[in-house]
Amino acid sequence: MLPLPVLEQAAAEMTNYRGSGMSVMEMSHRSQVYIDIFDETKANLKRILKIPDTHEICFMQGGATLQFSAVPMNLIGKTGKADYAVTGNFSELAMKEAQKYGEVNIACSSSDKKHTYIPSQGDIKLSQDASYFYYCANNTIYGTEWKYTPDTGSIPLVSDMSSNMLSVPVDVSKFALIFAGVQKNMAPAGMAVVIIDKSIAGNEHPLTPKLMSYQLMIDSDSMHNTPPCYTIYILGLVLKWLETQGGVEGMEKIKSAKAKIIYDILDDSKVFIGSAEPGSRSDMNVTFRTHSEELDAKFVKEALAAGFDNLKGHRVTGGMRASIYNAMPFEGVQALADFMRKFELENK
Amino acid sequence: MLPLPVLEQAAAEMTNYRGSGMSVMEMSHRSQVYIDIFDETKANLKRILKIPDTHEICFMQGGATLQFSAVPMNLIGKTGKADYAVTGNFSELAMKEAQKYGEVNIACSSSDKKHTYIPSQGDIKLSQDASYFYYCANNTIYGTEWKYTPDTGSIPLVSDMSSNMLSVPVDVSKFALIFAGVQKNMAPAGMAVVIIDKSIAGNEHPLTPKLMSYQLMIDSDSMHNTPPCYTIYILGLVLKWLETQGGVEGMEKIKSAKAKIIYDILDDSKVFIGSAEPGSRSDMNVTFRTHSEELDAKFVKEALAAGFDNLKGHRVTGGMRASIYNAMPFEGVQALADFMRKFELENK
Repeated sequence: MLPLPVLEQAAAEMTNYRGSGMSVMEMSHRSQVYIDIFDETKANLKRILKIPDTHEICFMQGGATLQFSAVPMNLIGKTGKADYAVTGNFSELAMKEAQKYGEVNIACSSSDKKHTYIPSQGDIKLSQDASYFYYCANNTIYGTEWKYTPDTGSIPLVSDMSSNMLSVPVDVSKFALIFAGVQKNMAPAGMAVVIIDKSIAGNEHPLTPKLMSYQLMIDSDSMHNTPPCYTIYILGLVLKWLETQGGVEGMEKIKSAKAKIIYDILDDSKVFIGSAEPGSRSDMNVTFRTHSEELDAKFVKEALAAGFDNLKGHRVTGGMRASIYNAMPFEGVQALADFMRKFELENK
Repeated sequence: MLPLPVLEQAAAEMTNYRGSGMSVMEMSHRSQVYIDIFDETKANLKRILKIPDTHEICFMQGGATLQFSAVPMNLIGKTGKADYAVTGNFSELAMKEAQKYGEVNIACSSSDKKHTYIPSQGDIKLSQDASYFYYCANNTIYGTEWKYTPDTGSIPLVSDMSSNMLSVPVDVSKFALIFAGVQKNMAPAGMAVVIIDKSIAGNEHPLTPKLMSYQLMIDSDSMHNTPPCYTIYILGLVLKWLETQGGVEGMEKIKSAKAKIIYDILDDSKVFIGSAEPGSRSDMNVTFRTHSEELDAKFVKEALAAGFDNLKGHRVTGGMRASIYNAMPFEGVQALADFMRKFELENK
């Protein structure tokens, strides 16, 4: 979902961006009118996330999935080893991709309980010589979210924040690298935002495709080739909208309040059961089920008829999942809550 | 440039795509409403370019630049060698990238005459055991275009058609692989269309990033991860517009007639000199200069004041360049021609 004011502005500016006579889709990425959009978007993201000068923002194509490869290709060579936390589908895919480029240690995993929880700090077994420690901050399929930033001492911290970026403040200085596919909270699909400590770049594997070199992206200010200009423009509009909501600090309050509406129903319910353990619950993706697959299917079907799309859980988990990203309004969450209460009354 | 009717339709459908209640930017790539857009776009491209069933269309992120890496990573392993035609900046970049992955033979080059011409068939020195022969069909910086399809016998043919795709019919069956960054004639920047003979995929280097594997893209129908959904939607709108112009056959007539207007001026002029040799002239990018850099600068400055953007040549060539992609209307070319005639009268 994208905020309606963002879509309305994009529509209004589609054929003629602010008197330029051009659509943003048509602008040369080297033109001043576009560079102004690009620079403002970067500056706003830097301000909103309080990104320190030690770090650079890169806009890279290929979404989070290409970052699963870019991270080890650029970073694992330092020692040849990396530590991964496996807490769901996407961290497992990232871990498997990293195995192509070096030795991978699974520092912790939640697979013993079907990824229904986030390991605690004490569960993490670090290698002494890992090039980095990797974790996925929010697991969309399982509905779990890291509520703390792992302490990895001198081992650089890398995090996939694709599904909770911009929903919560982050102390960027603790991270060597943060990346996020943009399509959850930021912009249309087709790009990843990469926030990288500049000192960690420059040691990529010699076979790294040029466009995947973090050093090249830093040196070229993400303009080695034509960047996804229009996606960056939409991100800029989303950031301006975000500031009207109080920035990430405001968004954190809103998203916690939205998630609490659904979690309160789960905690009081005799029909619905929350899938994730309470201390590990995601505020972006609420996963739940009923006592039977038949009743799950009935819920999904009736919800769809009532206008609630995409409530079916991922095929690997079954059950249900309510994704309540930044652009989901309070009213939408409240309407879902009302529907769940009504379903409970009718099916208890 | 994008056709105005495409931008107008995109604006009209921005907040609510055909009664779906959603923007295309917000649709899940697995939803039926989006899959219909995706399938229709692929089907239209297949029909317009008469793509045979032996070939698959893939939508890949990273533009042409990531294909410079993907081509050798996927294809050079067969024999460890590849032949490259170097006829400009982008083919040279592609050639240098390929050197990371195997042995590269420069089968022909136009660097002896500053890339002002396209080598003839007789100039091409093929290796006996090349995995493929690679050429860039249109050289945007130098304003040259291959007017023939090289005959490489049993050596698979690979072409970068980023800047003339959809401007001319292509016998796809002759090619093992065609790719095109979409931002010239097809859609906003951030994607490459790859048309691949399915039989050539599946032998990628073991370190190939997962998202760059042609076999995976074929097997997943470009949906291994979330594709750049909105870019594909715009491509779909462009293809529908293209069919109203008579498809690639109609576009070929239009683009030749548009280019001829400018080339006729160059041939008659005592002030302007065409940069490319007549038999190698591009219909997409017309490069020219005057007898002095001062007069070049004067032309660019006065043209800009008259509303003609982007006429300055690339920094490696100097001079001027008029890019007349598919979406440039006849009237725009005619206006430029009038301006050039006026400038000639004032400066001869």
